Amino acid sequence: MTPVGRDDIEAAAERIEAFVRRTPVMTLESGVVLKLELLQRAGSFKPRGAFNRVLRARDDGSLGEAGIIAASGGNHGAAVALVGHTLGVRTEVYVPSISAPAKVARIRGFGVDVVIGGADYDVAQEAANARQRVTGALLVHPYDHADTVAGQGTVARELASQVPDADTVLVAVGGGGLIAGVASWYRGAVKVVSVEPETIPGMARALAAGAPVEVEVSGLAADSLGTRQVGAVPFACAAPFVHEAVLVSDDDIRAAQRELWDLARLAAEPGGAAAYAALASGAYRPAPGERVVAVVCGSNVDLTTLT
Amino acid sequence: MTPVGRDDIEAAAERIEAFVRRTPVMTLESGVVLKLELLQRAGSFKPRGAFNRVLRARDDGSLGEAGIIAASGGNHGAAVALVGHTLGVRTEVYVPSISAPAKVARIRGFGVDVVIGGADYDVAQEAANARQRVTGALLVHPYDHADTVAGQGTVARELASQVPDADTVLVAVGGGGLIAGVASWYRGAVKVVSVEPETIPGMARALAAGAPVEVEVSGLAADSLGTRQVGAVPFACAAPFVHEAVLVSDDDIRAAQRELWDLARLAAEPGGAAAYAALASGAYRPAPGERVVAVVCGSNVDLTTLT
Repeated sequence: MTPVGRDDIEAAAERIEAFVRRTPVMTLESGVVLKLELLQRAGSFKPRGAFNRVLRARDDGSLGEAGIIAASGGNHGAAVALVGHTLGVRTEVYVPSISAPAKVARIRGFGVDVVIGGADYDVAQEAANARQRVTGALLVHPYDHADTVAGQGTVARELASQVPDADTVLVAVGGGGLIAGVASWYRGAVKVVSVEPETIPGMARALAAGAPVEVEVSGLAADSLGTRQVGAVPFACAAPFVHEAVLVSDDDIRAAQRELWDLARLAAEPGGAAAYAALASGAYRPAPGERVVAVVCGSNVDLTTLT
Repeated sequence: MTPVGRDDIEAAAERIEAFVRRTPVMTLESGVVLKLELLQRAGSFKPRGAFNRVLRARDDGSLGEAGIIAASGGNHGAAVALVGHTLGVRTEVYVPSISAPAKVARIRGFGVDVVIGGADYDVAQEAANARQRVTGALLVHPYDHADTVAGQGTVARELASQVPDADTVLVAVGGGGLIAGVASWYRGAVKVVSVEPETIPGMARALAAGAPVEVEVSGLAADSLGTRQVGAVPFACAAPFVHEAVLVSDDDIRAAQRELWDLARLAAEPGGAAAYAALASGAYRPAPGERVVAVVCGSNVDLTTLT
């Protein structure tokens, strides 16, 4: 038994269907299939989990007047702001002071309350947690909750219908919510491969150790994948079903971003390009005839870095 | 009888299948469906027509040692360069001296011969025509040939299988190759709507006059849609089946580019965003329940204009 089953993902899919996009897939000349989750609302997969978490709480009566609260200066912050705006729920987003001004402006653009919550993500999360204990708002964690994981799992449910003959799915890992959802859907039916920057090998180390362990956080993709350790819930979901964990360099990620733009006019952020980087760099080498999908999962990129 | 039939498009689809992408569709929250042809190889729909023209010539023996020649500093130039590179055919591309250096570099990047052919597109086309008479190369016109139109028609053939219940398809028009292909496939089975910048109303004027007429060329989308008159072959294909011609302002196009980026992280060039601009601006107003597809057809954009 893992914390999230296929039935949880089926229920999540039904719950969030009216609020998220069915993102398309596209096959490149190399035979690689891209799952274009970077075209999701708010520019990443994060609204799937955030909508599922909040809608489920609303259904079971645990969403009150105090609304919702979250910490993130990036994709999760934008997703929670979208959820709050869409559902008409009072929303506070705690952002680290290091967040890119453009991303903070995007979160604020949804008309929610933005609070500068500390120097980095972990401090901002602690500040949000403290505030939550005062207000009683629903804490929408970026990855460490079964409802969030079930929401992210709808990526795999969609993919399974779009590419029924997939052998392998490559997924970028930060806190582990997306790969946990993907693993919880496929449950070993396809190879699920974890891809992380060499500078943030949280899942690779956790799988080796048999439990989440702390790692240093740095490098090009730190703004989206920079989590000190993978979450307990995601790890429990992912560990039994993740086939392999590979690492890519920042140069690999940068080259993958350029290649996605040059070959397919996709504007992927570093974390969003990481899964494809594993293929483009050879960190993951498919067998002949192996049908591989790379999930391109985020597009909140500074466009000037692609030119 | 029009110059291109469904059978020609079926034959084209088979001929080019190994060389072009099946581009995806995505439905926005508004219900509008986008055909993401901007994710095609070389960043626009143009390779469909160019591959069909050259492959058919190769099959029937009219492609010789002299190779292929074309005039375009933009999407068609990149497409012909891709074709020449892919098929290993000697290729000359005449570009206007006003072409953006980045676009010329992209064409040159395929390893083909690039010649500065004159001040604007029409002069470059004349220079390419003159050179063709000397070398005997196969002239690959950007739109005024039945094989090119049949290739572009494969966009509609794909779309018909992806969105079988479409009521209306909006298509941007320059020389008319794409809308001619789309009209030749649907043949009145769905409403095909022509969208042009107010500054280049070649199809709107031609439909009113019953024949192609010359128009002035200016404005934001002139680099991709700026043709002095729609082609004779495209006009003959399109005129019987185009339901309506609408015009959009440069401000509408700019707003549509921003909206496609903000809402869906799609980097569309002005000409590529024009069809969507007709919806976003209200230049085309669907009836309640009308299922509308906008073809987003080009992405060779200066990314700094989207931020």
